[in-house]
Amino acid sequence: MNGAEALVRTLAGSGVDVCFANPGTTELHLVDALDRIGSIRAVLCLAEGTVSGAADGYARMAGRPAAALLHLGPGLANGLANLHNARRAYTPVVAVVGDHAVGHQRHDAPLQSDITALVRVLEGWVRRVEAVGDVGAATAEAVAAALGPPGRIATLVVPADVSWSEGATAASAIPPTPSRAVAGERIEEVAGVLRSPEPAVLLIGGSATRGEALRAAERVSAATGARLVCETFPARLERGAGRPVAERLAYLPEQVSAQLAGTRCLVLAGARSPVAFFAYQEQPGDLVPDGCAVHELAGPGADVAAALEALGTLLDAPRVSPAVKPAAAGTLAGELTLASLGAALAQSLPEGAIVSEEAITAGAPLAAATEAAAPHDWLSITGGAIGQGMPVAAGAAIACPDRPVISLQADGSAVYTISALWTQAREGLDVTTVLLSNRSYAILAMELDRLGLGDPGRLTRDLLELSRPDLDFVALARGFGVPGERPETVQEFSAAFRRALAEPGPHLIEVRL
Amino acid sequence: MNGAEALVRTLAGSGVDVCFANPGTTELHLVDALDRIGSIRAVLCLAEGTVSGAADGYARMAGRPAAALLHLGPGLANGLANLHNARRAYTPVVAVVGDHAVGHQRHDAPLQSDITALVRVLEGWVRRVEAVGDVGAATAEAVAAALGPPGRIATLVVPADVSWSEGATAASAIPPTPSRAVAGERIEEVAGVLRSPEPAVLLIGGSATRGEALRAAERVSAATGARLVCETFPARLERGAGRPVAERLAYLPEQVSAQLAGTRCLVLAGARSPVAFFAYQEQPGDLVPDGCAVHELAGPGADVAAALEALGTLLDAPRVSPAVKPAAAGTLAGELTLASLGAALAQSLPEGAIVSEEAITAGAPLAAATEAAAPHDWLSITGGAIGQGMPVAAGAAIACPDRPVISLQADGSAVYTISALWTQAREGLDVTTVLLSNRSYAILAMELDRLGLGDPGRLTRDLLELSRPDLDFVALARGFGVPGERPETVQEFSAAFRRALAEPGPHLIEVRL
Repeated sequence: MNGAEALVRTLAGSGVDVCFANPGTTELHLVDALDRIGSIRAVLCLAEGTVSGAADGYARMAGRPAAALLHLGPGLANGLANLHNARRAYTPVVAVVGDHAVGHQRHDAPLQSDITALVRVLEGWVRRVEAVGDVGAATAEAVAAALGPPGRIATLVVPADVSWSEGATAASAIPPTPSRAVAGERIEEVAGVLRSPEPAVLLIGGSATRGEALRAAERVSAATGARLVCETFPARLERGAGRPVAERLAYLPEQVSAQLAGTRCLVLAGARSPVAFFAYQEQPGDLVPDGCAVHELAGPGADVAAALEALGTLLDAPRVSPAVKPAAAGTLAGELTLASLGAALAQSLPEGAIVSEEAITAGAPLAAATEAAAPHDWLSITGGAIGQGMPVAAGAAIACPDRPVISLQADGSAVYTISALWTQAREGLDVTTVLLSNRSYAILAMELDRLGLGDPGRLTRDLLELSRPDLDFVALARGFGVPGERPETVQEFSAAFRRALAEPGPHLIEVRL
Repeated sequence: MNGAEALVRTLAGSGVDVCFANPGTTELHLVDALDRIGSIRAVLCLAEGTVSGAADGYARMAGRPAAALLHLGPGLANGLANLHNARRAYTPVVAVVGDHAVGHQRHDAPLQSDITALVRVLEGWVRRVEAVGDVGAATAEAVAAALGPPGRIATLVVPADVSWSEGATAASAIPPTPSRAVAGERIEEVAGVLRSPEPAVLLIGGSATRGEALRAAERVSAATGARLVCETFPARLERGAGRPVAERLAYLPEQVSAQLAGTRCLVLAGARSPVAFFAYQEQPGDLVPDGCAVHELAGPGADVAAALEALGTLLDAPRVSPAVKPAAAGTLAGELTLASLGAALAQSLPEGAIVSEEAITAGAPLAAATEAAAPHDWLSITGGAIGQGMPVAAGAAIACPDRPVISLQADGSAVYTISALWTQAREGLDVTTVLLSNRSYAILAMELDRLGLGDPGRLTRDLLELSRPDLDFVALARGFGVPGERPETVQEFSAAFRRALAEPGPHLIEVRL
């Protein structure tokens, strides 16, 4: 078999069943192998930001990596921003990047660039396959490397002649490496700390924001009085009625400082110690309060679920009965505002929904408003590189075809990867995009003020406003084959939202705020 | 003054008068400085591919660099593909990338990544400014480095605290380095070679495809019988009625081999020796025919215009009277096809037009069809990274506000940077986009066949076809604030094209092929 076939057979044998792709000439043998072998679903994306973002969304929900097929250095470069987000989410991704044939490299043809140098920015795993005999083993290693723990970006750079040459062999899957067990002494130390009456915070992140780990964190919190706080941008947070309620760590450093003021003990469970997203004059970057001791129960790659369970047992923490807050009821009426939109979502979010949230300034208010909605998963933008929301929504919908996906999407960041709508249409995905149009980079206007640059002049306003002309997202959606509408009132919104959920395939609802 | 102000004042003093921007928090002091100083035009782009592509288009026409303002590593990554194209065009660009404050780096905040490592892929000039006292001098050096010769990407990485700290000084412009003069012996050697009766080709590229250099190349060709051939993807080719006619080097290696067959002597004037764009089994990558000697008259960075003039003088080559081919006349009627579209463009292309061509499979036929059109400049996609055409059109229109810009744009590659339409609308640019919609990655279908992978299965077709659903570019244009239409006949096209040229501001005409 040729190298391409060995690669695809090895991917499939290692549990990779979806490939998001934006191929070019150097990847055509890989496309051909995907076609002939037929066991991997191939999903065309019209730009690489969608390829990498969808691979992220897919793996966050499926728990196994997708392949991301990219064309040479420029294709990888276009996909890097969302791979950066995936890296920050510890998402496993197997990036397969075609390259010129080995012997062609010396000609420095127009599309030539140093792909492996480019990959290094992802601080993951990278292998350039130079010989066809190596491709099977390298592919199996890539999948294993992607799975971690913790998950990471594993990149295979595959020269075209490695793909087309005969003499390859598929490799067997490498058994996954289990998460590292947390030492008993560490768990006992944390238990001791939490037994003290000092004000404590249990900060959860990574895989501790869902499933049994989240339940265990909740009972540790209930038994010890430690506040349960979730990292600012969780990769996948289970929330909603009947589920543990974790306070969300704030975004702005002064908010975090206020939130954590008086905390004497910070226990990290899958989360990193809090730092400021950006630096500001005269403000600290490290947001751990003075006099607060930090104890890491489990870092990335450690078995945080088992550690939290053991911690709960050690603390004799009883199971917590879910304190179900009543979901807001009552008929909504009137103007469509952020507040009424939040109330409408809280009422209408379907059980089992997956929310891909890139709502930027609207993110925290909408998260707060939907705390008591029907149980759902919340996927946030982990690395700060905008243009993630719509691709992640597409990938999540492919991972979970029976669950509705709601894409809460700010206007400015929507534009980066807006063609993800086309992939949603092509694949018939049940994604409802709620497009939050405030016609500005509102977060920058806020930051401007915080940086002491208030009262901006005309040029600054020009660079921060998304107007003159306004973007018409209903027209953009139609252009990509997705039906859209623009309700004016909250009743109209709710009706549009229900219709979108009831009809198969993607929809877009533009909300002008 | 603070670092941001010193940077902006130094840019302005060094001749940079336009800044294409997609700023974030770390660049807000730079935005503020642009606003307060007011001598640089700031142009908002909704994604970084437009920032870098517009900077490329601007400098190709203006002959001086624009600044490209980008947000941290992910912003740079999003702009890399078009910076790659600019690098291959030897376009001067000053990329200014904000970074976290120096002291903030150690916190590894979510948006942190190794920006200088990322920049290296551009093989240009890069400086990370660590102290506010250095920013003025570094900026002046960046502009000088960008100008070369030859032009290159100069990247300034500017931590936020360098921007906001006081104590900076603006630096004076560094006088540009003149192009390297070509040694007299080299010119004499080439003259000797061209005097011989052996079949010769004069291959022009870089800055030899316009102005006096092009005229000199034409008379050398006429006097010696050497065929005048232009590189496949010139950064800026002057062509049309009354201008020198240079045969275009073909794209596919077997076409180039046929084109150059029998050539015994290849003289390179600003062009690189021909190599295959992609590698194929059993085909050479080096496309110089066997037995053909290669003589480099002037490489990148050398004064190719002076060398060609001197060569013409040495050869006693008389000035050539332009052999004006008659432009095709007659009334066009009937179906809108690639052929009738080419004929319509040949008739209607306005004098002084700038053509930004990313027509991919339609590129060569449309170039051939418009050879005798009114004089115009033709900008092509130099590095093969698609998504360049519409941003380059925007940048060229800003450089040359009195000249109409025609953007010949394939559908698949349009999607990558489609939001460039919004910048065209925001700035009121006279860009007419002719959107060539064949609803497929037609070039990949062709390559599939050439790679021996014909008769593709369903999955391959799915990955190569832009259908189910079709893209509606008129709706997409409307979404970005650009009026569009979709003519059915060639008469309707011509009427739409005339209307678009007559009305100020951008227009899009979707042509379904």
